[in-house]
Amino acid sequence: MPRIALGLAYDGASWNGWQTQPGGRTVQDRLEAALASFLDHPVATICAGRTDTGVHALEQVVHIDTSAERRLESWVRGVNAMLPPSIRVQWARAVDADFHARYSATARSYVYLLRSHRVASPILHGKVGWTHRPLELDAMRRAASLLCGEHDFSAFRSSECQAASPVRTLEALTISQSGDFFLFTFKANAFLHHMVRNLMGVLVEVGRGKFPPEWTAELLNHRDRRRAPATFSAAGLYLARADYPERYGLPSLPVQDALHTHLGISLS
Amino acid sequence: MPRIALGLAYDGASWNGWQTQPGGRTVQDRLEAALASFLDHPVATICAGRTDTGVHALEQVVHIDTSAERRLESWVRGVNAMLPPSIRVQWARAVDADFHARYSATARSYVYLLRSHRVASPILHGKVGWTHRPLELDAMRRAASLLCGEHDFSAFRSSECQAASPVRTLEALTISQSGDFFLFTFKANAFLHHMVRNLMGVLVEVGRGKFPPEWTAELLNHRDRRRAPATFSAAGLYLARADYPERYGLPSLPVQDALHTHLGISLS
Repeated sequence: MPRIALGLAYDGASWNGWQTQPGGRTVQDRLEAALASFLDHPVATICAGRTDTGVHALEQVVHIDTSAERRLESWVRGVNAMLPPSIRVQWARAVDADFHARYSATARSYVYLLRSHRVASPILHGKVGWTHRPLELDAMRRAASLLCGEHDFSAFRSSECQAASPVRTLEALTISQSGDFFLFTFKANAFLHHMVRNLMGVLVEVGRGKFPPEWTAELLNHRDRRRAPATFSAAGLYLARADYPERYGLPSLPVQDALHTHLGISLS
Repeated sequence: MPRIALGLAYDGASWNGWQTQPGGRTVQDRLEAALASFLDHPVATICAGRTDTGVHALEQVVHIDTSAERRLESWVRGVNAMLPPSIRVQWARAVDADFHARYSATARSYVYLLRSHRVASPILHGKVGWTHRPLELDAMRRAASLLCGEHDFSAFRSSECQAASPVRTLEALTISQSGDFFLFTFKANAFLHHMVRNLMGVLVEVGRGKFPPEWTAELLNHRDRRRAPATFSAAGLYLARADYPERYGLPSLPVQDALHTHLGISLS
């Protein structure tokens, strides 16, 4: 049965996360309903990375199997016609039968968009995190460099995390600034539950000068979630990209291009 | 009685415009209720420019009179505590008794944020206009230059417009591009009802190549609303600034700075 991969963007503010729930208002439920209308049969989707309530996607990759015959060009418009404006299919590709949106992904990237300003702005409410404190970019960058690499991330793992191991390789954590906005890009083979939001909690504490950058390494070493700051708001978190082997030919954008096309913001 | 000026930003998507309505869900109604709670007396507000349903404000200026004694520093936090996150007071200043948010304003600036892309993005849905057609920046700039100056704008005036004269002076109309985003900045002493959205309709038709830039001058000359394209979507429209004489000492931001602090977007 032919396999199709879809690139999806969504505003997570109005959804109870990605994963299907009984009677739940989730992105997966809504997408599967739209696909069933478009294809005239029930559809099960597999995604690159499950997002929590309030978390957005610049690019979520999904695969499905269908024997329904639809011209590939009609997928984007056809499925979008069945979706609310907070979810939009960006592209569709026929992929080899061995492609798997979750298991074929070699890395995931998340972006956290944070605004530092005395007063909150209503314009991107729910789309950016906010702190009223000024942030020190260099201190956050030093902390970020201590987090990169392979570590036991137990200190930054939700108590509900179901992963077998707390060890992950944070391949990159870069921070850039554009005026009042700070853009944090996290890339890893995989993430623990709440890992990005828990790391954001630490980076903001370091950025506001409450703790030195080295505190980050201490927290890692103690592997104790209770010593680390609270989970940061979901509002500014975006699943930005999933990487796959080139042979699948997916048209995924680099993270900075995805941010630019969806939000008009340039990473410096 | 002391007079206070407030700078206000709001997301217009969830409001039936600025102006108070009986039982209406408007920004003015909501702000006056918050001010009444903060000051313990009923409050009437006057604004720089009334915005329509769905239209946003990076900076709306409002004045009120109150004999209640509140420290000026407490206004921003105190009033915001009574407001939903879609409306935020950005600053408060004591002003001379002759200051009037509407009549003292010497100019208003609006920004229209438009995204040109094959597929709509859910991330800024309701916050940007969208066209799936590619747009030609130079053609739109030539059309814009023909609209600047003093003209009879009858062709771009809503049939519900109550202004005594259709003549306005469009002091500036600049267009810049940042990737898929086009940013249109309109500055005038005052605007007719729907004037910016009606001008956007023309600029987009010229940008997609349906008509030459000179068509804009023709439409102006005919002064016939029925010849001009339909009113463009409210989604991308922001009241960005009101200019006042310097002696009032208001802290209003230049348009590009307001856009940058609220949306993270840089005008090039």
